[in-house]
Amino acid sequence: MDITVAIDAMGGDHGPHVTVPAALAVLDRDPQVNIVLVGLRDVLEAELRQRRRHTDSRLRIHHASEVVAMDEPPAQAMRNKKDSSMRIAVELVKTGEAHAAVSAGNTGALMAISRFVLKMLPGIERPAICTVLPSLRGSVYMLDLGANVDCTPEHLRQFAVMGAMLASAVEEKTNPSVGLLNIGTEVIKGNDVVKEAAELLRHSHLNFHGYVEGDDIYKGTTDVVVCDGFVGNVALKTTEGLARMLGAFLREEFKRSLLTRLMALAAWPVIQRFKKRVDPRCYNGATLVGLRGIVVKSHGGADSFAFRFAIERAVSEARHGVLRRISDQMALIHPESTQQRAVAQ
Amino acid sequence: MDITVAIDAMGGDHGPHVTVPAALAVLDRDPQVNIVLVGLRDVLEAELRQRRRHTDSRLRIHHASEVVAMDEPPAQAMRNKKDSSMRIAVELVKTGEAHAAVSAGNTGALMAISRFVLKMLPGIERPAICTVLPSLRGSVYMLDLGANVDCTPEHLRQFAVMGAMLASAVEEKTNPSVGLLNIGTEVIKGNDVVKEAAELLRHSHLNFHGYVEGDDIYKGTTDVVVCDGFVGNVALKTTEGLARMLGAFLREEFKRSLLTRLMALAAWPVIQRFKKRVDPRCYNGATLVGLRGIVVKSHGGADSFAFRFAIERAVSEARHGVLRRISDQMALIHPESTQQRAVAQ
Repeated sequence: MDITVAIDAMGGDHGPHVTVPAALAVLDRDPQVNIVLVGLRDVLEAELRQRRRHTDSRLRIHHASEVVAMDEPPAQAMRNKKDSSMRIAVELVKTGEAHAAVSAGNTGALMAISRFVLKMLPGIERPAICTVLPSLRGSVYMLDLGANVDCTPEHLRQFAVMGAMLASAVEEKTNPSVGLLNIGTEVIKGNDVVKEAAELLRHSHLNFHGYVEGDDIYKGTTDVVVCDGFVGNVALKTTEGLARMLGAFLREEFKRSLLTRLMALAAWPVIQRFKKRVDPRCYNGATLVGLRGIVVKSHGGADSFAFRFAIERAVSEARHGVLRRISDQMALIHPESTQQRAVAQ
Repeated sequence: MDITVAIDAMGGDHGPHVTVPAALAVLDRDPQVNIVLVGLRDVLEAELRQRRRHTDSRLRIHHASEVVAMDEPPAQAMRNKKDSSMRIAVELVKTGEAHAAVSAGNTGALMAISRFVLKMLPGIERPAICTVLPSLRGSVYMLDLGANVDCTPEHLRQFAVMGAMLASAVEEKTNPSVGLLNIGTEVIKGNDVVKEAAELLRHSHLNFHGYVEGDDIYKGTTDVVVCDGFVGNVALKTTEGLARMLGAFLREEFKRSLLTRLMALAAWPVIQRFKKRVDPRCYNGATLVGLRGIVVKSHGGADSFAFRFAIERAVSEARHGVLRRISDQMALIHPESTQQRAVAQ
């Protein structure tokens, strides 16, 4: 099946300079993808011309006259910019003209707009932000990463369902294991919300592993790690900070003298392979999951190499019918919601 | 001033094999430290004999007939093992025979025993676990790391005072900056507890920087990072997991072939310097802060090199009058508590 992705071509720190070449790269790599670039027509046409490319049956431009600023309050973006590239991209998913939307814009605005335009999947109370991280044993799906600071045990259960369905769809894992993020069993065994969520998950049909701790994320103890958005956001950003610090220290050591620079040169191929292996750009693209449509958020500062991965994530989720899988699972948990199932895809 | 440290010589995964050589190393390096090894006299004497060392005016053994197991429930360790090496070490601080206690034992038991034996400093409601982390700009004091899962804004304020006083005492920083850990300002600006804590801190006499995010820890944006124990524990363990994964990937890349092994050899001195610089063993030793006495918890799996750092942390805190500084600061916040000040040091 051909997948059509609507791209908020104006979003992110770099706008069309990044989104357009990334879109072109995806078109070149995957013949079964079509792309709609949403944004200021003149700007996008100029960007294509500059790259000696033009619209065709697989690449079209959908004009949108406004742009949501990176620091714009979500409510304002919702109310005042009904013709923003972000909003139109999401509306193309709503109307069925696209299977998924991708934006590197303001997360809050994207979440608010997506929720307003697409609405939630039956049985899901809150959308979550889910990302994929590398681990010693393959990919780990982690959610929520900041959409929800205060969660109930039921929210965490829903996150578990969504994470498991994402992992099973995209990674083609039959019965992905789910871990609930908690703190060391030594001092105290977590707060009431986590304990109750564990109880719910123990009685679910998911492959619930039990509690995991922070180090289990990168150990790859489970395929999915569930936590509230506060904890998830801190864990993710701590990771970014640590990786940057370690990189800076390693560079400093290699730049210390002429001799160490020669050593760096000698080890260059290995260091490049290592860097490639843990390149965060290859993990760019967080899914706003729980909506009646696929919306992927790219890092705002992404370059075109990184933005390509966000588009490919959206393609992959659409191709593997993630929404249908989540609804089917929610119907098992809340059979009453099956009646209202009228889900996209 | 000579500092006397009581060491729970039986604690940790390796007991006296680690604690005794670490104690000897500290004695050799710092002539103004005395050590009391607390534990089974026969075992400790044998350990000393094996190392051709003996007790003297700076090193003595204090017999304790019991040992708290690493997985023993804290309440049980409290009730049933009144003559444990852990408890006796803490009691030596209480009676003034030692300025500080160090243990690599069970965190929950150490916290419960320390709280029961030493009691809290005036004005402090809950003890916290504080550790020092490396950053791009020097050391960062972070607390709480797991003693308190549910915190009120007032608890967070008290953690801020304790962290700032630790940093100012040990690092000799005049007015250490304090950051309150929160999540990206984009989506939502944190939960109510964090917002109210920020309000309290804005009106405090501390050098309050405002909110920081996970990546600010390793950027070194502030000297102190304050958070609740759940978030802090996850952030710390995520760090451990990521560091281990990156190390494993780097090793794998260097071991890929004979050629890459040669490259590793060529870069060996630089890699060793880098490893030394981020060696977690040099950051071993978390302080149970808020008590009327200094108690430092070493990682349970610490080797003698790492355990030495935990002892040295205890020495440094005792030498710099950390307890007095915290009480003085708390007296500024809660003047009513000054009347009950009858603090150690």
